[in-house]
Amino acid sequence: MKNYVELEHFLTNSLQQSVLKEGFSRVVFGLSGGLDSAVVALLAKKAFKDNHLCLLMPSFTSNESSLNDPKNLCENHNLNYEIIDISPTVLSYVNKKDMNELRVGNFTSRVRMSVLYDISARENALVLGSSNKSEILLGYGTHYGDFACAINPIGDIYKSDLFDFASFLGVDENIIKKPPSADLWRGQSDEDELGFSYKKIDELLRAYEKSGFNVEKMDRGSFEKRLYDTIMSRVKNNRFKRELPLVLKLK
Amino acid sequence: MKNYVELEHFLTNSLQQSVLKEGFSRVVFGLSGGLDSAVVALLAKKAFKDNHLCLLMPSFTSNESSLNDPKNLCENHNLNYEIIDISPTVLSYVNKKDMNELRVGNFTSRVRMSVLYDISARENALVLGSSNKSEILLGYGTHYGDFACAINPIGDIYKSDLFDFASFLGVDENIIKKPPSADLWRGQSDEDELGFSYKKIDELLRAYEKSGFNVEKMDRGSFEKRLYDTIMSRVKNNRFKRELPLVLKLK
Repeated sequence: MKNYVELEHFLTNSLQQSVLKEGFSRVVFGLSGGLDSAVVALLAKKAFKDNHLCLLMPSFTSNESSLNDPKNLCENHNLNYEIIDISPTVLSYVNKKDMNELRVGNFTSRVRMSVLYDISARENALVLGSSNKSEILLGYGTHYGDFACAINPIGDIYKSDLFDFASFLGVDENIIKKPPSADLWRGQSDEDELGFSYKKIDELLRAYEKSGFNVEKMDRGSFEKRLYDTIMSRVKNNRFKRELPLVLKLK
Repeated sequence: MKNYVELEHFLTNSLQQSVLKEGFSRVVFGLSGGLDSAVVALLAKKAFKDNHLCLLMPSFTSNESSLNDPKNLCENHNLNYEIIDISPTVLSYVNKKDMNELRVGNFTSRVRMSVLYDISARENALVLGSSNKSEILLGYGTHYGDFACAINPIGDIYKSDLFDFASFLGVDENIIKKPPSADLWRGQSDEDELGFSYKKIDELLRAYEKSGFNVEKMDRGSFEKRLYDTIMSRVKNNRFKRELPLVLKLK
């Protein structure tokens, strides 16, 4: 679907119908200051008019721009928002432990989910997620944290396709231009951490999708070994994040 | 599987294999003072010997027995345990809000999950769940809270079958005898809240299972209307808790 008018129309309609089918008329979602949640916010505004709420949940590890960028987005696009500083909640636990930044990051992501779900109960609203297709396939996100939601409107769109779509929707230029980051610790950069650009990663993931998500049937010829090994081992090792808990079945 | 020797053998073997298959050799799980997590604890001890950790996470809403009972269980059965009081974390958020007890309860459950997953990262251990089959079918638990785990050893066992199995495994008598409770607020009782005993509920759920989880094919003849309506509407309305997030698929 290369026509962005059509894509926007399809996603807002599909979102309206899915939310209605679950018996809801309102949605709530986290707004991080990144590109993905900005796209979700603008789609939600189109689909639900005033019946949406953006939740800004900065923490002590967040960059300055993680509060200002989403605030500006809300003001520029007339979005409803609320700010809840989760630092005291995260610090109440983190301060007593000797935790590396990955553990702090994952804990932060789960606290965000807990707050988001609490506010969804207050608002009688459904929780929207904003993980893109690249992140979901890579498992690049926190299990039961930012991956947790009721409905994800952009989970079938590769990250590298989201830049132009965001631009089409009118997402602020500075949000589109900043380097993708989960913002779970200072200076975190997705592409540094993953070791490759989303462009390169998505080429590989598309080939994987084309094979029916079957590595054995995948055309590996054109990809460099280090890219293939790094990315496909992430895909394999994080598969559990795309699955339900395993219940031991009785015979 | 009515033979408890056989059931214990089957579950410990199946648990060992599943954990190994995921590349782990250690497990961690919450121990609440209730029957279900006590069963999981004793199975885990049998399956993994010393490579297990029980996490006791009392909060300000917990009953006195929610700390003493699991502590005694650990001491009586030589289980490894650690206590993390989650009150400061829960209160850091809850104190600032005007929340009903259901919201506080669900928030508490999600904080427990966040702490449990953090400790699992520290221990390089897999998280075991302890929701039983009745709770899972009813959706009687917190989505992304106590329902969140990697592997659930007792998720295919109805609550009413767990009492005798717990007794067979040697779970302390006072744990078996206390009324089932999620302990999310003071005085909470599962059976009061659900409106029926687990015995009655499970009879209905078994008929539902027998129909291949298809209400249209279910024999409703013998169940009183109020039981049927109450329980089956819970099953229907909470179905989302047994499903993955909905990703809007592009055409």
